[in-house]
Amino acid sequence: MAANPSLAQALSAIRTADAELKAFTALHQSLPSTAPDGPLAGKLVAVKDIFDTADLPTSYGSPIYAGHQPATEAAMVGIIRRAGALVVGKSTSTEFAYLQPTATLNPAAPGCTPGGSSAGSAAAVAAGLVPLAIGSQTGGSTVRPASYCGIVGFKPSFGLLPTAGMKCFSWSLDTVGLFARTVADAAAFAQAVSGGRIAPPPMRAPGAWVVGVPDAYPWGELSASSRQGMARATEALRAAGARVVACKLPAWAGEAFTAHDAVQGWEAVRALRAEMDDHVQQLSPMLREYLQGAMAITDQAYATAQGAAARARVACEAWFDGIDVLLTPSAPDEPPSGYASTGASTFNRAWTLLGTPCISVPGATGVNNRPMGLQLVAPRERDDLCLAAAALLERALQAR
Amino acid sequence: MAANPSLAQALSAIRTADAELKAFTALHQSLPSTAPDGPLAGKLVAVKDIFDTADLPTSYGSPIYAGHQPATEAAMVGIIRRAGALVVGKSTSTEFAYLQPTATLNPAAPGCTPGGSSAGSAAAVAAGLVPLAIGSQTGGSTVRPASYCGIVGFKPSFGLLPTAGMKCFSWSLDTVGLFARTVADAAAFAQAVSGGRIAPPPMRAPGAWVVGVPDAYPWGELSASSRQGMARATEALRAAGARVVACKLPAWAGEAFTAHDAVQGWEAVRALRAEMDDHVQQLSPMLREYLQGAMAITDQAYATAQGAAARARVACEAWFDGIDVLLTPSAPDEPPSGYASTGASTFNRAWTLLGTPCISVPGATGVNNRPMGLQLVAPRERDDLCLAAAALLERALQAR
Repeated sequence: MAANPSLAQALSAIRTADAELKAFTALHQSLPSTAPDGPLAGKLVAVKDIFDTADLPTSYGSPIYAGHQPATEAAMVGIIRRAGALVVGKSTSTEFAYLQPTATLNPAAPGCTPGGSSAGSAAAVAAGLVPLAIGSQTGGSTVRPASYCGIVGFKPSFGLLPTAGMKCFSWSLDTVGLFARTVADAAAFAQAVSGGRIAPPPMRAPGAWVVGVPDAYPWGELSASSRQGMARATEALRAAGARVVACKLPAWAGEAFTAHDAVQGWEAVRALRAEMDDHVQQLSPMLREYLQGAMAITDQAYATAQGAAARARVACEAWFDGIDVLLTPSAPDEPPSGYASTGASTFNRAWTLLGTPCISVPGATGVNNRPMGLQLVAPRERDDLCLAAAALLERALQAR
Repeated sequence: MAANPSLAQALSAIRTADAELKAFTALHQSLPSTAPDGPLAGKLVAVKDIFDTADLPTSYGSPIYAGHQPATEAAMVGIIRRAGALVVGKSTSTEFAYLQPTATLNPAAPGCTPGGSSAGSAAAVAAGLVPLAIGSQTGGSTVRPASYCGIVGFKPSFGLLPTAGMKCFSWSLDTVGLFARTVADAAAFAQAVSGGRIAPPPMRAPGAWVVGVPDAYPWGELSASSRQGMARATEALRAAGARVVACKLPAWAGEAFTAHDAVQGWEAVRALRAEMDDHVQQLSPMLREYLQGAMAITDQAYATAQGAAARARVACEAWFDGIDVLLTPSAPDEPPSGYASTGASTFNRAWTLLGTPCISVPGATGVNNRPMGLQLVAPRERDDLCLAAAALLERALQAR
């Protein structure tokens, strides 16, 4: 057992800072003065309030579950604790990890949304309240808030970390996400919680990397800020010695983007059946309208979308033969001003459906000098490669 | 809305019969007199008590959760209800779907275990109380009780149906299972709950089928009853016109069988962390000892086993090139006498880890004239082929 006498102080500091930041929905009253051994011994972790905890209330960001105390604990929470880390509290989630904003502020961009749905986890890490946090991603709920808050957000390969005990929105898309301030911390976190299934990032000289940059995106044009961020990253990578090559995203990328809609909608009206049928007045108008619209998605449309997704996954795997990783903006833009919207998952949805590892690396800014993350995408199950490329990009951006 | 005036009578009959059978832990007091439209309109379904229901208590087969009423509903329950079916009640599960027997009897083999862990679902279908039921499989918890109870038990491809809201034992293995009395009913059930991702079984002449029969199993010898069942199935398939060929299970089959142990154990001590650490005295000695032993599985052993599993999945996919499906016993033997053990998952574990669809087809018997199921295994994502082969085998066994 490792002694951690300063934990009470840390918890007190978190409570004080969070009065303004509003990143937490619940904090433990005390922490054990000793933590078990393990690869994360004594690390403080924030857990998105969409994961069940048996010792802290869990409301999934919805008034339907205000004050709800689960009897069980999500598998990710068990993993974190067995690794020796300490859960300090529950971080805010948008309503069922959809789009209704939380009260959380963005510590890296005053007056701007922290993004969503993992708003509290991203903000708590960005503000330095905790070194590590977990969230989730069904569209862009890890990579986007990481981009907006100027930290590292890592979405591992689909299915690698357990979603058991996490409120489901779409079982074919829901993926656990990890937040940290540096790529090295994110990589160590990922290795620990995966039990070593995610290998240490391979050591490789910068000159041995080939990074692909799409010449266009089926989901839209680049904003001025994302062009600026991409230019900065491309120059930095080249200056570091990496090869950056233009590439054309094949048809499967657009097909995956389109398929995401039907897959998410068909599954959400089933995963949230009880909430729709028994508590509809307590859903936000935004989510209610989304779910009611999604009721029109037929089984046939769902099966067709799932078929397209399966074909796209196979094609995507083969396509990476020419490049090591893909570089794209993490989000369409800098964090928007105000708190009315959590932004858009445009640059994330296809990869979430494809199940590839994705990471948002901070270090660039947009035209208003707000954080503009860069996303690296690697082939499925090559989480180690994704993390190694992220370390390269992080160093390259810091060197300039 | 389809009118179902006889539902109250059906529910009353279930309650009466279950006083002896003990297949249910909870039954609804009443059912709606009308059911929504849908592919399963008005069908009565039993739900294994490991899936959360917001309107029925859910104890996961454990005294720790006696009387526990979840606030949320498992995604599978939402799927079933959106398809128009009616959940009648919760069917018994062994403790957290491990090995501690339930009180459920076997309607097809008096004095014998119904198997586990999905004991109640298999028994309720076998006794004719409900036409359909859902269960789960982490080792052999669907295929084995189906074999023992003389019904159809279908384990679809891993990840195809959602485990969200189901108590987790091992997230890399936990798979939803379906029970019905006929292959046609199981196929219709599978198509409906998968939203058509599982396609209708292809029509194919018996003579066009090639069924592989392993000449040996890395997990042990065949018992007299399983030899008898295999002989019966092989003859029946040949008489129906199918080609039955001997085949050798490659090394990956044994490696998958071995890897199952470390994957399940490492994950179970994390998925059940809270139960182990906070309620250890309420665990059965069997489960307590298993979990305490599994604490010794290192991250390295886990990562190695997951690596072996990933390689075995790739090899297995390619291997099916020569045959359409594989035929094996569903269980090592007929249902054992008595209620002290739920039997062994020897013939199921490797396929659960590999994620292949598996189905138990009834129609054969063992040396004591008790049910002896035959298991058909198809390549991953070829659930339609698995169901089509099962229909062929069912017809062939009935024709003799």
